[in-house]
Amino acid sequence: MNASASISKLATTIAQIRAETIAARRAGVKIGLVPTMGALHEGHLSLVRASKAECGLTVVSIFVNPTQFGPNEDFSKYPRTLDNDLKLLAACGAEVAFAPEASEMYRSDRSTTVDVGEVAEPLEGEFRPGHFRGVATVVLKLFNIVQPDVAFFGQKDFQQVQVVRRMVADLNVSVDVRACPIVREPDGLAMSSRNRYLSPAARRRALVLSRSLKRADELVRQGQCDAAVILAEMRAVIETAEDARIDYIALVDPETFRPAETIAGPTLAALAVKIENTRLIDNCLLSPRAPIL
Amino acid sequence: MNASASISKLATTIAQIRAETIAARRAGVKIGLVPTMGALHEGHLSLVRASKAECGLTVVSIFVNPTQFGPNEDFSKYPRTLDNDLKLLAACGAEVAFAPEASEMYRSDRSTTVDVGEVAEPLEGEFRPGHFRGVATVVLKLFNIVQPDVAFFGQKDFQQVQVVRRMVADLNVSVDVRACPIVREPDGLAMSSRNRYLSPAARRRALVLSRSLKRADELVRQGQCDAAVILAEMRAVIETAEDARIDYIALVDPETFRPAETIAGPTLAALAVKIENTRLIDNCLLSPRAPIL
Repeated sequence: MNASASISKLATTIAQIRAETIAARRAGVKIGLVPTMGALHEGHLSLVRASKAECGLTVVSIFVNPTQFGPNEDFSKYPRTLDNDLKLLAACGAEVAFAPEASEMYRSDRSTTVDVGEVAEPLEGEFRPGHFRGVATVVLKLFNIVQPDVAFFGQKDFQQVQVVRRMVADLNVSVDVRACPIVREPDGLAMSSRNRYLSPAARRRALVLSRSLKRADELVRQGQCDAAVILAEMRAVIETAEDARIDYIALVDPETFRPAETIAGPTLAALAVKIENTRLIDNCLLSPRAPIL
Repeated sequence: MNASASISKLATTIAQIRAETIAARRAGVKIGLVPTMGALHEGHLSLVRASKAECGLTVVSIFVNPTQFGPNEDFSKYPRTLDNDLKLLAACGAEVAFAPEASEMYRSDRSTTVDVGEVAEPLEGEFRPGHFRGVATVVLKLFNIVQPDVAFFGQKDFQQVQVVRRMVADLNVSVDVRACPIVREPDGLAMSSRNRYLSPAARRRALVLSRSLKRADELVRQGQCDAAVILAEMRAVIETAEDARIDYIALVDPETFRPAETIAGPTLAALAVKIENTRLIDNCLLSPRAPIL
């Protein structure tokens, strides 16, 4: 890849990004959108590459959306690294970055919200009340602003992808939603903008998340199909990190997010754990062995 | 107007209506949408004519939306007159009617809703809980399906227009919303599909709604600016109909729908009254006299 081959344009207003996308749409160019909160890492860049492979214009939004953070969450300290993000995007060949201020995205008298219902209620929805209302609302706004043909999301936020898919289906939004695989560090830690919060020692302890998922995958491959047994073993792996505080460890239907009692079909293993003061999430799709008849 | 000049196409599936609108959009044709629940009358037809005057393709949706009716409301008996509606639309020159079944619009597992907040809470929102959530959600679905450049609504449903405007602004929907004046019968009754529920005697008593608004307008023109005085006079007019049951008589800010205590600027007079068992609404925008300085 040639880092100097392209410079990403930066749009900071809705009028600017619309001018870019309207011109592309008129020219019949397929538009891809990669919604991000910036602090870009290889996970984000894999989405940009997926968009570049399919679309003639790739728009990357960089917006730390205040409405998806709870009052005691990390909105104010969430990493903002716009200059570096723009360099990474240029190196990947993303044509346009859309990085609006909050005041550009939200009028002070705004009051409309989008609620996707059941799929947003458990797991992240339970531990981050209002989070998915904020996510659904801002993603719909971005879809309406950019009007992409395809939008790319990372499966690390598996429940978020389902929330977006449900919203798109229920509201008849004309966009294809693509979910791309989790990108991991060589030792297994799922890439996340929040990993930079971790001290070196906590960074090592954070490996219990991916190890716990790996243990669940092993058990299912060995034929274990009792969710309670798998959850207990997952918990035991997490508890090897002395300061780990578990928000949830769950085995759920990957469409409805209802709890699975038996691993009878594709099942999502998902967890949220605080290490030091950093809340990390990870997940893995489990597939039971074909039954031997 | 030449009734045989055009025959409206009828689309009953989302795929059919999308095929019509995509072709028009590619050809650079401006698309107008007139969302209706059918049982068309001159009020609706005035919206069709407004769309025809501005747009190259006019789509009229005819959909009695179940999610905007409360459990004790008139969903099941709401008039369905599709054959006559299509004749009226053809005579007006509407190019396409979109009349889907409920199962086409709503998957059985749908769960996403749109809530516009404060502007949807008083008046109709108070007496029809959930009504505007149903309206906002179905209108956004129709916008996403048809992707019109302009959408036309009647000011008889003044609060509905504000709900739609608020949703469009807050969610960055790319559509211009036009509100067209109330169309009235010669004696003043606002046209409504529900007027056909009225017995001849109730039809005469129903005139108290428009008379009440006319009285408010007179008082304001005479310089009265005390909302309590105007509301009392409006109520007295309504109560001349012996069986009138008032849901609300209100003077509110036409943007925020907060109650007005003094008529100091444009103010909406709005009311909902049951005559016999038919719930009727009407409204009028009041403008205070310019102050004499």
